[in-house]
Amino acid sequence: MQLGLIGLGKMGGNMRERIRRAGYTVIGYDRDPGLSDVAGLAELVGSLDGPRVVWVMVPAGGPTQAVIDELAGLLSPGDIVVDGGNSRWTDDEKHAEELAARGIGFVDAGVSGGVWGLQNGYALMVGGDPEHIAVVKPVFDALKPEGDFGYVHAGKVGAGHFAKMVHNGIEYAMMQAYAEGWELLEAVDSVTDVREVFRSWREGTVIRSWLLDLAVNALDDDEHLEKLRGYAEDSGEGRWTVEAAIDNAVPLPAITASLFARFASRQDDSPQMKMIAALRNQFGGHAVETSQG
Amino acid sequence: MQLGLIGLGKMGGNMRERIRRAGYTVIGYDRDPGLSDVAGLAELVGSLDGPRVVWVMVPAGGPTQAVIDELAGLLSPGDIVVDGGNSRWTDDEKHAEELAARGIGFVDAGVSGGVWGLQNGYALMVGGDPEHIAVVKPVFDALKPEGDFGYVHAGKVGAGHFAKMVHNGIEYAMMQAYAEGWELLEAVDSVTDVREVFRSWREGTVIRSWLLDLAVNALDDDEHLEKLRGYAEDSGEGRWTVEAAIDNAVPLPAITASLFARFASRQDDSPQMKMIAALRNQFGGHAVETSQG
Amino acid sequence: MQLGLIGLGKMGGNMRERIRRAGYTVIGYDRDPGLSDVAGLAELVGSLDGPRVVWVMVPAGGPTQAVIDELAGLLSPGDIVVDGGNSRWTDDEKHAEELAARGIGFVDAGVSGGVWGLQNGYALMVGGDPEHIAVVKPVFDALKPEGDFGYVHAGKVGAGHFAKMVHNGIEYAMMQAYAEGWELLEAVDSVTDVREVFRSWREGTVIRSWLLDLAVNALDDDEHLEKLRGYAEDSGEGRWTVEAAIDNAVPLPAITASLFARFASRQDDSPQMKMIAALRNQFGGHAVETSQG
Amino acid sequence: MQLGLIGLGKMGGNMRERIRRAGYTVIGYDRDPGLSDVAGLAELVGSLDGPRVVWVMVPAGGPTQAVIDELAGLLSPGDIVVDGGNSRWTDDEKHAEELAARGIGFVDAGVSGGVWGLQNGYALMVGGDPEHIAVVKPVFDALKPEGDFGYVHAGKVGAGHFAKMVHNGIEYAMMQAYAEGWELLEAVDSVTDVREVFRSWREGTVIRSWLLDLAVNALDDDEHLEKLRGYAEDSGEGRWTVEAAIDNAVPLPAITASLFARFASRQDDSPQMKMIAALRNQFGGHAVETSQG
Repeated sequence: MQLGLIGLGKMGGNMRERIRRAGYTVIGYDRDPGLSDVAGLAELVGSLDGPRVVWVMVPAGGPTQAVIDELAGLLSPGDIVVDGGNSRWTDDEKHAEELAARGIGFVDAGVSGGVWGLQNGYALMVGGDPEHIAVVKPVFDALKPEGDFGYVHAGKVGAGHFAKMVHNGIEYAMMQAYAEGWELLEAVDSVTDVREVFRSWREGTVIRSWLLDLAVNALDDDEHLEKLRGYAEDSGEGRWTVEAAIDNAVPLPAITASLFARFASRQDDSPQMKMIAALRNQFGGHAVETSQG
Repeated sequence: MQLGLIGLGKMGGNMRERIRRAGYTVIGYDRDPGLSDVAGLAELVGSLDGPRVVWVMVPAGGPTQAVIDELAGLLSPGDIVVDGGNSRWTDDEKHAEELAARGIGFVDAGVSGGVWGLQNGYALMVGGDPEHIAVVKPVFDALKPEGDFGYVHAGKVGAGHFAKMVHNGIEYAMMQAYAEGWELLEAVDSVTDVREVFRSWREGTVIRSWLLDLAVNALDDDEHLEKLRGYAEDSGEGRWTVEAAIDNAVPLPAITASLFARFASRQDDSPQMKMIAALRNQFGGHAVETSQG
Repeated sequence: MQLGLIGLGKMGGNMRERIRRAGYTVIGYDRDPGLSDVAGLAELVGSLDGPRVVWVMVPAGGPTQAVIDELAGLLSPGDIVVDGGNSRWTDDEKHAEELAARGIGFVDAGVSGGVWGLQNGYALMVGGDPEHIAVVKPVFDALKPEGDFGYVHAGKVGAGHFAKMVHNGIEYAMMQAYAEGWELLEAVDSVTDVREVFRSWREGTVIRSWLLDLAVNALDDDEHLEKLRGYAEDSGEGRWTVEAAIDNAVPLPAITASLFARFASRQDDSPQMKMIAALRNQFGGHAVETSQG
Repeated sequence: MQLGLIGLGKMGGNMRERIRRAGYTVIGYDRDPGLSDVAGLAELVGSLDGPRVVWVMVPAGGPTQAVIDELAGLLSPGDIVVDGGNSRWTDDEKHAEELAARGIGFVDAGVSGGVWGLQNGYALMVGGDPEHIAVVKPVFDALKPEGDFGYVHAGKVGAGHFAKMVHNGIEYAMMQAYAEGWELLEAVDSVTDVREVFRSWREGTVIRSWLLDLAVNALDDDEHLEKLRGYAEDSGEGRWTVEAAIDNAVPLPAITASLFARFASRQDDSPQMKMIAALRNQFGGHAVETSQG
């Protein structure tokens, strides 16, 4: 089997390697000529036998849209485009329609695995028509972890990215759960070795998990995380999860709290807490700290 | 009517003045001799005709306990102690029992009003036996605002402080509501005059309130609150409100969020967000900011 | 001055009355012929002298879009459309562009006041170009409350609805604040008259407000609210407030908690709590309640 | 080695079995004579060679206090009491002092493992003096899972229960994270097989965990959890975690949201949402649902 793969960054590059190890041919394109196997998308498409499968692994939004637009003009009926990036699920149906107008299939694939995927395999959540997915299946099988899990056909177009988005929302709240517990343990005097408490939890507890294992790794590097700032970006999926929940009137208090904690972590000073300080001063004469303070 | 008043700080001093304006005699004691009318509690008690009413207006916890212990030894059966400080409601029953063992009555009084109380009157929420409250009633009437509102006999001993505690919990969430809205309005370009938006809300809206009026005052001093740090203390009642809710299995999401926002505002760097950053780095190779960064 | 007013429901009908009391001519249209002054929009437009001002007061989304589309074909350059409904602020720019292409002005107006507006005046938050707003100003002055407040030109097109949206977000959290406090007071035995506690708060407290006055009204009708179900709809603005906050990375914990509380109030049974029950049963053998239970 | 074990319920009974399998003698006492090896605590103490180790595994609060009081009168200097129940960490120091006055050692042990502990081992978090812990160590080794993890000496007296309490707080938020994600996936049409999405997550994802495995087990029993009510008890540790956080000014938004979700799940009707409904009706004339509705 052959695969065209567009986007050879941190994720795409490792995915190419894992697919090649499974014995498949991967022709990769990247804007960086040093990474790319071909000069452009036209050459990539021309290098593949039909029916072609082209996997798009570029940033969500504009970059993905631009690649899909260009592929729509290059591919042939019966070819299939897989969007494996972090696209918003609401984009998938638009992409599927744009391509279907030319007889080209579309599959959305949410991919989890990060820097560990090359070694452990990538969890895949895919959406689309069964006949399109069947064509791509060998690639999915090459990418996924060994064993019974790590792959699901979640539903129709969009379902793959939706499932991956929810995965990330859950991830936010799980990380927040450990982070809150860690801060509380560090705050009290009686617990003298928080790192060993975390390490002990790796077996026999209700909260054992891969994220816990990673937390222990991090604490082994830096017991009190003194080298880090308490600052966290968010990548889009957390926001979309909350927006999807609002659209469906589903309360998500823990996931949303986790997203808001990230927002707050990025503020040098909190505007809303300035207003709280101002109000306290107005009614109670409470001292305020000035921004120079 | 005579009143002994212990504690002549920001609150107590103004309360003395308001009671005196109503024509009553107030004999005040404060640790600061420059504020005090008498040399000590014994002299204060000796200066009052029985049945005496002594109003305690000192910090909650140890200081209040010490004053009540000393009064227990100085007062006579039929006298009444009023705790007008910010005591935790769970202390009230203990104080009432300690004093009742000597025939001394006890009334707890939650007092709201801040720096505006002298002029506008103090809202009072009191707890205790009706016969004790009847004795103190003239003082309550002197302190309360004019009109039909601003005073309530909320229930038995402890109910006054409990009602005041809940008042403060509500206050936390109302302040947070305005603060969140203000930050959001300041964050967008299309709204060009946030202060005037707040000012306009003072009439005709669902959210008009005294706190809103104070917010406008604060913005008139400093349109974007640039002189302030986003930093807010909390005074105990917010914490106790959440604890009381937990004891009674009552969900308080907005009040608790408001309390936690204050906690977070006082952290130079967030330990829990260091853990989030560490975990993101572990699984995704996401860049972290160092504490020097 | 003349005004065309489209939509004569609960809000629009009272607004017509208040504008007429100010001495202006209002020609109203409603789908319900019993309420309408004219047979259709064409007749309404034909009845007005130019430059015309037409105020749209119909449900947000499709109905507002349909009216604006029809008006675009009927009005003349120099006329002005005011959208006084609860449109999402992101729709305003689209409407302004659509109308500007034909030389027609557009002003968005967030209107607060509910059933009290006829008597007390409507708070108005408007967005648009100063020259358009100047034309409509007499109508705004007729609608707004007497006194210095209750009207603001918040910024460019969209700013009026944005400010009104944030007003409603704040309103959600303020209502939640009182509601949480009320539930907690009702939950404890020591506070024997919660209604009188609320009533007392109307003067002298930090939390006095119009909403508090309404809460007392409601408790006077039904002291323990036994006639009501704990069920609350949400009207769109709360959801949009949270979405706008997410777009701008502003944490809104109290407002969002208030929105989620409404979502949860409308669920007969909580799916997420079924999962909690299932997990507790899995690891701890904790008893579960069946859905028949 | 010998061990006295008090409390042979679901947890204690399985722990006795696991310790016996390790070759140690366990003399158990339970109020239920059918479970008990001895007639009472005096006989249990008399049956053990000194220095004795007696493990208390009874409900927190009064029952644990009663057993410790009785043991204080029966044991000898050099003996050690282990409290393996779910005691609040603040009780531990009191128990340690009470026993130390008679020369008896005290160790607190938080135990995780539920119904799976007999087979997989129990995770143990212990607090106390190293010399006391050394004596009990063989029992800890018998109970803990095989391998490098599942046991920690967390710090001084109280640290074991504190660490276990935080473990449970984290557990609450992790369960809530999966539950929120599950509800959102179930709410949308595009995802046609939520159970398979959950199953797929067991490998290769960031959110793989033992709790996730249990969630899949539960969904295999009942795909849409239709047999269950969305109702969850809480066991004390979640409440104490939030209280400890408040004492230490640590914000715990996700854990607290999870606790409040359980509180809300147990309310037939929400008092606070009645107040929201009442307020909406007051200012907007919004329809309410009556409690008969």
